[in-house]
Formats: sequence, C-alpha cells, structure tokens
Amino acid sequence: MQFASDNWAGAAPQIVEAVAAEAARVGAAYGGSALDEQAVARFSAVFEREVAVFFVATGSAANGLAMSAVNQTGGVIFCHEDCHMIEGECGGVEFLTGGARLMGLPGAAGKLDIDALEHAIAGLSPPSEHHGRGMAVSLTQQSEAGTVYSLEEIRQVGEIAHAHEMPLHMDGARVANALAHLNVSPAAMTWKAGVDILSFGATKNGCLAAEAVVIFDPARAADMPFLRKRAGQLFSKSRFVAAQFDAYLRDGLWLDLARHANAMADRLRAGLAGSNGAYEAWPTTGNEVFVALRRDNAERLRAAGAAFHEWTRGGAEVADDAILVRFVTAFSTTPDEVDAAIEMLR
Amino acid sequence: MQFASDNWAGAAPQIVEAVAAEAARVGAAYGGSALDEQAVARFSAVFEREVAVFFVATGSAANGLAMSAVNQTGGVIFCHEDCHMIEGECGGVEFLTGGARLMGLPGAAGKLDIDALEHAIAGLSPPSEHHGRGMAVSLTQQSEAGTVYSLEEIRQVGEIAHAHEMPLHMDGARVANALAHLNVSPAAMTWKAGVDILSFGATKNGCLAAEAVVIFDPARAADMPFLRKRAGQLFSKSRFVAAQFDAYLRDGLWLDLARHANAMADRLRAGLAGSNGAYEAWPTTGNEVFVALRRDNAERLRAAGAAFHEWTRGGAEVADDAILVRFVTAFSTTPDEVDAAIEMLR
Amino acid sequence: MQFASDNWAGAAPQIVEAVAAEAARVGAAYGGSALDEQAVARFSAVFEREVAVFFVATGSAANGLAMSAVNQTGGVIFCHEDCHMIEGECGGVEFLTGGARLMGLPGAAGKLDIDALEHAIAGLSPPSEHHGRGMAVSLTQQSEAGTVYSLEEIRQVGEIAHAHEMPLHMDGARVANALAHLNVSPAAMTWKAGVDILSFGATKNGCLAAEAVVIFDPARAADMPFLRKRAGQLFSKSRFVAAQFDAYLRDGLWLDLARHANAMADRLRAGLAGSNGAYEAWPTTGNEVFVALRRDNAERLRAAGAAFHEWTRGGAEVADDAILVRFVTAFSTTPDEVDAAIEMLR
Amino acid sequence: MQFASDNWAGAAPQIVEAVAAEAARVGAAYGGSALDEQAVARFSAVFEREVAVFFVATGSAANGLAMSAVNQTGGVIFCHEDCHMIEGECGGVEFLTGGARLMGLPGAAGKLDIDALEHAIAGLSPPSEHHGRGMAVSLTQQSEAGTVYSLEEIRQVGEIAHAHEMPLHMDGARVANALAHLNVSPAAMTWKAGVDILSFGATKNGCLAAEAVVIFDPARAADMPFLRKRAGQLFSKSRFVAAQFDAYLRDGLWLDLARHANAMADRLRAGLAGSNGAYEAWPTTGNEVFVALRRDNAERLRAAGAAFHEWTRGGAEVADDAILVRFVTAFSTTPDEVDAAIEMLR
Repeated sequence: MQFASDNWAGAAPQIVEAVAAEAARVGAAYGGSALDEQAVARFSAVFEREVAVFFVATGSAANGLAMSAVNQTGGVIFCHEDCHMIEGECGGVEFLTGGARLMGLPGAAGKLDIDALEHAIAGLSPPSEHHGRGMAVSLTQQSEAGTVYSLEEIRQVGEIAHAHEMPLHMDGARVANALAHLNVSPAAMTWKAGVDILSFGATKNGCLAAEAVVIFDPARAADMPFLRKRAGQLFSKSRFVAAQFDAYLRDGLWLDLARHANAMADRLRAGLAGSNGAYEAWPTTGNEVFVALRRDNAERLRAAGAAFHEWTRGGAEVADDAILVRFVTAFSTTPDEVDAAIEMLR
Repeated sequence: MQFASDNWAGAAPQIVEAVAAEAARVGAAYGGSALDEQAVARFSAVFEREVAVFFVATGSAANGLAMSAVNQTGGVIFCHEDCHMIEGECGGVEFLTGGARLMGLPGAAGKLDIDALEHAIAGLSPPSEHHGRGMAVSLTQQSEAGTVYSLEEIRQVGEIAHAHEMPLHMDGARVANALAHLNVSPAAMTWKAGVDILSFGATKNGCLAAEAVVIFDPARAADMPFLRKRAGQLFSKSRFVAAQFDAYLRDGLWLDLARHANAMADRLRAGLAGSNGAYEAWPTTGNEVFVALRRDNAERLRAAGAAFHEWTRGGAEVADDAILVRFVTAFSTTPDEVDAAIEMLR
Repeated sequence: MQFASDNWAGAAPQIVEAVAAEAARVGAAYGGSALDEQAVARFSAVFEREVAVFFVATGSAANGLAMSAVNQTGGVIFCHEDCHMIEGECGGVEFLTGGARLMGLPGAAGKLDIDALEHAIAGLSPPSEHHGRGMAVSLTQQSEAGTVYSLEEIRQVGEIAHAHEMPLHMDGARVANALAHLNVSPAAMTWKAGVDILSFGATKNGCLAAEAVVIFDPARAADMPFLRKRAGQLFSKSRFVAAQFDAYLRDGLWLDLARHANAMADRLRAGLAGSNGAYEAWPTTGNEVFVALRRDNAERLRAAGAAFHEWTRGGAEVADDAILVRFVTAFSTTPDEVDAAIEMLR
Repeated sequence: MQFASDNWAGAAPQIVEAVAAEAARVGAAYGGSALDEQAVARFSAVFEREVAVFFVATGSAANGLAMSAVNQTGGVIFCHEDCHMIEGECGGVEFLTGGARLMGLPGAAGKLDIDALEHAIAGLSPPSEHHGRGMAVSLTQQSEAGTVYSLEEIRQVGEIAHAHEMPLHMDGARVANALAHLNVSPAAMTWKAGVDILSFGATKNGCLAAEAVVIFDPARAADMPFLRKRAGQLFSKSRFVAAQFDAYLRDGLWLDLARHANAMADRLRAGLAGSNGAYEAWPTTGNEVFVALRRDNAERLRAAGAAFHEWTRGGAEVADDAILVRFVTAFSTTPDEVDAAIEMLR
C-alpha cells in the first residue's frame, strides 16, 4: 500500500529492458548517438511538429532550465502559489536563472485564478527598471492538487500570457496523467492550446530518470545546449535517457501507464467515497486523490503499513478531527493494494 | 574498434542487473531508501572512514558542486590549464559557484607544475578584496593526459593547498583507473594523501550514469543537500543511482572493470610501440593512450571504422606528417578490438 | 511644490561643503584614508558600539549586499509585500544573493503582520532541501506607507527572527526620519531592539549619494569587503562618501534635517486634514503623507506644478471619485511650498 | 609627492562647483532630470553620434555591466592577463555576468599580443557546448602598463573580434589620458576604430565618482537599464553624476585635465631618464611612469614621503638591486612635486 508518491514506484519492465539492451551497445556520447536522434524524433512525432528536446536529470532541472531559456533581467514568473517551483525546488529556478522571481498566485484546486493572474501581470505592466517585468506564465498540468486544466482553461492562460508577450510554460511532471484524463492529443494540450515550453516528466510514470525540456518553436532553443551543459545537466551516456524515452513514447506505452495509474486513483476515490467520513478535497482527475480522513482512520491506515503524505497546502478545509491526505497511485499500483486500503478504512 | 571515449561504452551487466532488480521494488524517493543508505555505507567502507556522499547526474555537476561546497566570494581555483573544468564544462564551475575563477596552470603530461602552483598562489596571497583569494586547488586523477599522480605527488599538492588554508579537490572522473594503476587503497590515494573533496566518477567505468561528490570530513557537508537540490541534481528515484553504486563498489567490481580497461590500454600501447612511426606522447598509465600517428595511418585506421579523437592540447610535439591521437579503452574493450587496431597500423 | 520624492531634493549645504573641502586634498583610495576611518568611527559613536560599516552607491545595493552578507543556499527572506526590495529593485536582492527568495507578507500600514510572519516562518520550518529555509527577516523603518515601527514592534519581530536563528535586517532608507519621530537613540531603535544588520540611507535626507551597510556584530562582517568589491560597489574615491557621512553624522545634522522634513510633512497633514474631502490613509509619522484626494483636486494641484505620485499599494480604500497620493517632504521643503499646496486644495 | 594613484587625487574645482550648483536645485530622480539628459547629450556630441550612456558608481561596475550587456551562456572574454578585470575586481565580471570567463592573454607592455589573441579565439572556434564560446574581446586604453594602443592597433583587434562576431570592449578608466596622448577625436579612438562598448572613466581624471558605460549602437542597449538597476547601480540622485559629466565634457575640460597629468608624467620621465640608474620599463605615453629604481633610491624616496607602488606584473626585467615602480600623475599633480621627486633621486 504505497501511496506516498509516484516517485516511490519502480520502473516499468519495458523501460528497463530498453536500457539493458542499449547497455550492451556502443554509441556516441553527449546526445550524438542514433538512439538519441530516434528518441528526439519520437517527441516530434508525438507532438505532431518538429520540436527541440533537451534531456535533463530531474524535473527541477527541467523547470529551472525552461525558465532560463526564456529568462529576462528583472524577470518575474507568474505561477500558482503551491506550485513545485515554489514549494519543492530549494530556490532552483531563482538560482538557475540568476535571480528571476516566482510570483505565487492564488487559485482554487491548484489552478491559476484568472483574475489574480491578470491583476498580477497588470501590476508589472509596462516593464520598468524599478519593478522589473513579467517574463513567463507557468501552470502545472496535472496540478499539485491533482486537478487537470481543460483545453479551454489552458488556452485562456496562454492568451493572457501572449497578450503580454510572455511565453506559457507547462510543468508537466505528470503530463501523461493529464493527457490520459483529458483523452486529447499531446499537441492539443500543449502548443495548440498556447504552451510554448514544456517540462516533460517521465520519471514518475515508469521511467528510471527521464525528464526533458520541450521547446515547441525550435528557433527559440539556440541557447539551450549551452544552458544545459553549463548547469551540469548534459549526460555523457545520454543514450540511456534516450533509451527510456524511446521505449516510453513507443506504441503509446506512456499513456497506457498513465491510464492505469489514473484508474487506480479512481478506484481508490470510488472506494473511499463517503466511507467512514472520508471525502474528496478536490476532484480526482489524474493519479492523485486528496481526501479528508478522520485522524484515527489515517493512523490506523499508517499503522497497517500504508505510505501516504498529509497535505497542508491548497486551502481545503477539513473537520477538526480530520486531516487532509494525499494518495498517489503509479503505473505499478495494483488493484489489490487499492482495495486493501479501502477495506481498512471501512 | 571504439576508442573515442569511455563515455561511448555501454554499461556492465552487473550494473544493469542491479538497476533492473531495483526497478521491481518500491522505495522512498530523494535518497531516503534503504538502498541509498547501503550505497552510502559502501563509500564509507571503501574509503575506510565515514564520508558524506552526494549522488549527482554528471561529472560536470560533481565538479561544480564540489567547488560550490568550498566556495568563497572572490575565490580562485588553481587547476591544470587542460583540465575538464576549464576545457569541457561550458563555464559550469563559474556558473554553479556564482563566479569563482578557474586559474589554469601549466604542467607537463597533464599534471600541475609545483612551481607554477606555488607562484600562482603567492600571487594571490594574502587575500585581498581587489585580487580576490585562493579558494581551492584541484587536480585530476587520472589526468587529462592519461597520466597518474603518485601518492607523493598528491601529498605535495595537498600540503601546498593546506599551507594556504585551501582544500584539495580531486576530479576523479577516472579515479578507478588511477587506483588500478597505483594499486593502492582508495583511502591512501585520497584523504590520506590530503584530498578533501572528490568528484567520484563511475559512469565512464561501466555505469549508466553514476557520479558523486565525496566529502571526507562530513562536518563540511552541511550545505551540500541544499546546493545539490537547488542545482536540480537531486534525483527523485535516487535509488537507481544507488543501485549502480551499490553494485559497482561491491566485491571490487569497479577495480576489476578499471583493471581490464587499463590492461587493454597497455596492450594497445605495447602493440603500437615503435610500430610504423607511432610513439607515445606521455606514458600510458591508465586507460588512455596518447600516441603520435602518421597522418596516413590515422586516416587509414579511421576509414576502417575505428573511432578516436585527435588531441590538440597538452603541448606534445609531433612530426610534421603526424598527428597526436587519443585512444581510450573501457571496461568493455576487447583484446580483439585492440589487436585489430594494432594490426591495421602495422 | 515638489513632493514627488525626497530623492528629488538636492543636498544640504553642509554636505556639499564637506565634499568640496575634501576635493582639495589628497588621500588614500578604496576606503584607506583618514577621513574614511573618521566617518566609520562616527558610526560607532552614533550607535554606541563598534560596528562594521560599508559604504555603497545606492539603497538597493545596501539591501542586496546586506542580504548577501547573511545569505544561505535555498534562503528565503521574510518581508512586507510592499517593501522596496520587492517593488523597486528590479530583482536586485535575488541577483546579488544568487537566488535568495523574497517572501512578501501582508501587514497593515506597511508593517509586517506578526501572525502572517509566524505562519510563513512555520511553513519553512524546519529547513529542508525541498522547500529551502528562512534566512532573514527584513522590515523597513520608516515603512513604505510612511509609518514607523515602535521599539516594541521591532523587538517583537526581532524575537521571532532570532527564535528561528535568523538575523533581523532593517531597510533604513529613511532611518533618520523614523528616529526623529520616535525620538530615541539610534542604538535603541536598532541593535538594542534586535536589529542585526541595517541599510543606512542618507541620500534621501540631504546627501548627494551616501548609503551604507551597518553590521552590528563586526565578527559577522568578514566577507563583506569581498562581497562589496565584487559587486562593483567599492568607490575608489571613497573619501567623498566618507566626507558626506562625516558631516551628516556630526553634531546631529542628520537628525536636524530629518526633523525638518517630518515637521513639513506634519504641517501638510494638518493643513489637509478634512480639507475638501481629503483624509489620511495611514498616520503620518515621518516625512510621507498618504492622503486620499478627490480626483479633480489632485489634477488641479498637478496642473499648478506640484509633483507627487499616485499610490496603488498598501490596500487603502478610497472613494470612487478619489485617488490615493503620496506627498514626500525633504530636508529642503519649505513651509511656503507646503502652505501653497494646502491653499490650493482648499 | 603623491604618485600612488590618480585615485588618490581630489577633484577638479569645476567638477565640485557643478555639483554644488546642482545641490541647490530640485530635479527628477533616477536619471530623469534635464541635467541627466544634458549630460547624455554631451556624450553623443563628444562621440559624434547618438550613443547610449549609463552612469554607474565605479570602474569595476562599468566593466562588469559592459560585459553583462554582451553576455552569452558559456561566454569567454579575451583580455590581457594583467588587465584590471582580472587583477583588481574581486571576480566582479564573473559575478555580474553569472559566470563568464576571463581568459588572460600575454602581450608586451600591457597590450594584447595579436597572435596570442588569434590563437586563443581559434581554440574556442566554433562555439561548442563543451568548451563554450568567445563572447567579447577587451582591451584597456591606456593600458595597465601605461602604454597606449595606436588607432591601427585598436582597429586590428577590432577586426579580429568582429571576424568572430564578438564585440570589442575598451576599458577606458584612463581613456582621457590616452586621447590626450594620441591627440585624435574620441570617435576616432573608439567606434571608428571598431570599439563597440566603452567603460568611460572620469573619476581618476578629476571627478568625485563618475563612471559610465557607453554603448555605441543604442539598439544594443535595451537590456542595460534593467542590468544596471538590478546590480544596485542606478543612482537615485543621478543628477549629481550628471553634473560631473556635464562639467567634465564641457569645453574640453576632461582633455585639459588629462593633458596636464600626461605632461607631469613626461616631466617625471624626462627628469628620471638615466638618473642614477633609473630607466623606463615601458614607454611613458600617458599619466603613468614605470621605472626601474635602485632599491636604496626607492627607499630614500619613500622615506621622504613620496607615495608610489612597486609593480610586479608585466614581466619587465630589472637588475637585482632594483625594483620596478609605478608613478601615477593626476590632474592635480604639480611641477614642484615632480621636480622634488626628481631632485631626490639625483
């Protein structure tokens, strides 16, 4: 009963096999191998246009380098106040950009509030050497509250960003889960909806370590090879990241894995619904279930060996004798695990 | 006949198996798993003292974060002018430290010239807000010229560094090859000889991607978790790096792999010796052979499918009709490959 | 009728004379002259203890270097959401610290709300490589809303900071006006109340360009000479800044100048009170008057040549037909100017 | 007998008077005053084209921000190994650029050696994410050895820089002295000879504190207001720097001051020539005399109260019983001072 994080999961057999096969081969280093090229080509195929792709080590690195790629002196990034760049990267964005500022904005259920966004942007318009200038808008899909922006919601944020000549960044640490939920094409949910740059995460969804920055207009990517290398993020044996992405994007594996994780989350949600006082804080639309549990129930579950985190962000109100907990499912979560947890809480 | 770089090699079966085994398991993220602890414990065992170990993605990251860990405002790092931090990291050390300066010093066969080192240090002594201050001395073991510092040579550099209150850093991208050559203990070649901080590379010697910063005095490591995370270098599924190191350091696998690579280099050296005008630029002591080849021979070899790099650094003089080339062997180089290359050059 | 900013004022005759006198002399550069020493000694005398003082070019530099002096990897600075470091320095603090984050907190009338401060600090406690760590608390005295913290209020903030092992910084761009208002000793309002590091501004209060970082515990200042020089903030002819401070702190000139400015603000406040619908947004306690004016009145005043700024921060509510404006007085403001403005608004 | 540095001199009466006159006036802050505009217009007039000008606090800031204005990820700056950016700015260029590297090159008498420059540039061509890329060439006019590049020499360096798509920077901390020596127009010595960006120093030549970055193509200056402000280098009472430049550039005052300083240096040179074993290390062409003195003579001079620095850079060879010393003259040096020094050494 491991629901602590999809980061605690292992890796999918197809991913491991691809790496193992490549391990027996020789190939050019630093991204120069045929497999690297093939993996990049898969990204272009998946997104239905030629994209520039840069493999990096972690999601934090992807976010920080994405922001570096659109960096401006005195730049401010508009994002949700609970987003990972603010809450979980130890100032990495600020560091890797040499001082850009993250302006955390409110918004229900982990999504940017449009009025708050427009108000914040207006406060820094026009650019000034005193207050600086807006340099990017960032949203997280699926969000930190487990919710998913609709295409229309993404478009709306993108239009606001573009109206102020800012790129739209999507932190896609769980991009596959969001796609699986929306059941739309990767192109539709990204560049066709206004996304300019994407942190494409695969680690949480069955890879060993495979993260990438995807720049939809390759003309904007000229500086990225230098930015990535300078940050110590260019793998010498890049082939082994390529091998993961190659297998991950082949024949829709990534979406299959995400669909499974989402289904497990939904099974958990359904099982808990109304059960013994539990109720959802936000709608479960991907692979995360945020649910208020009675304290005694939470303790009982933990005592039985279940791993999960209490959640203190997002502003959901819970009863005095309850806590908000986050359950995260993964590609490897089994129905039995889910059912055992449900059973225990009944 | 792949002699371009040990970065072009695949990964050793034991490493791949360890990763595959771990992929089937669940474990805490961000370094919190039992396997992470076990891998760290192996480092302490190998170095015969409790050390602080930080896994990172690349050798450049290891170097940059090692320098960040000993950073000083206005700091200058004394290193060899051909070292990787200068030649191959796109300014990563300067970036990750927020502006430390690499002062490249001359030295025969890739090793720091002691007089040049002392002269350079004296030039910045005492510290001043105008010229800055020495903050570290760095040497590369095995060096970029394929040579290996003796214990006595390391000690000498360490004493100079310490006399000026600077730590000694060792860039050990090929530390296993150096150890295999010297046939001394890891402790003897590092902290017992004066090394304070080590970039421990395993990727080139049979891993997929496994690099670490080793700080011999754990009391000096307090800031490193923050430095590493901020730089986007903390793997979420850190277990898969731990799995590599765990297998790598178990039962001396790492030294076995290095010994094989070194033996292949020596076989190549011996086979080329005197052959058709070829001669060594520097003594082959690890897994690199730097040899002057007649241009026509080099072209013939390349035409036959051999991969290797011309070398323009290090100051070795070659005849007008010759070029200096670098052959790098790896854990996976076979005697047949070596013999084929030798044969072709005869 | 210049009420735009105390930055628009000229310089006091005593300051100009001191600079002119020094201009005829020769002296050591970079802070090494006798006059530099004398000016530093005046700081120690004024603050009743030996302090470390570093002259810099601007208030933004003082703030940025003050934060650099207490910098931590992954560090977060708790400050008021309307403070100058957030609103008016183009990301200078983030840049000069290499990525520290400013966390803007709410608070009425420009002062930190204690509950919000404690809540924010708790959110980052204990330090973590994921969310980072609190590194400083900063307050502005006199605040951006023209208000002044009482000694007790400063003490309260200081105690919270120290309880979490953070230093307390005071942005004293208008420190003299606050002192003149409170009528306490400089020591009482700073280190005796818990302030560890002070951005000491003199430019707004009658100098040409004289700003300083004051570190109350000189033992913490060891890195500052390097930080300042590296940032291009060490004046070669430092004597001319020293000359300003020497005259400024001599015989209480600084407090006389501030008292005059404050008296002019109070005269303006009193004259406007109730006049034609005008009312104070916050209590006038220094040299700034924040007042709601009917739009037509504001326009009439501007048409008559008065300079002042509309104010959109701080959350004061004004009537639909009114705007909030800021009037700033200076050492050079005359009663006639003030009276002319009052007359016009009647 | 003050020959330590032109930084030890006071300020010219005309400069002081201009500041004093402006001190009695009111004017817009942050560069928005009429006087700021007027001073900028003087720069354009002096350089015979519209230029972008940015006042800053120090020469180090001018150099660091000039390099920031042309910054590139992984960028390398080619400059003389004894230049001020390397020897005297505590890593400020590296810091303000976020990690650009200064590559110090040899060259006789303080001037870049053309072959060394071309060789170094070739070593980083074409750009690579591994070794980085050349981003600027910088020369110092007058150089740190007191010598002056001819127009032809500047042109030659400029052509090399431009051939590799790099801008040419001139560190003009003593630009007036060089102009006075060459007796050419400011335009001829700068943009007409290929200079793209200039650190324009006036402090050493009679100002209190007046330094500027001059960008000859204003279209390249768009980011500079942000870069300057972010670095804490935008003076609030910018008018007082403007007042200095306005007086300095009016009616050729700056060149008169420099001509005087140069004449004093030449008088000193002539007086010392052959005197008692003294001889010039490099030709005296501006306001610095580098001369080898017998140790006993140097000590005698110092004992008599003369201030000057021993010089250890530049590679000049002196006899065993001699030292190399630098005498710097200033706008305020008197013939009597010079003659007294000469007399003492006879």
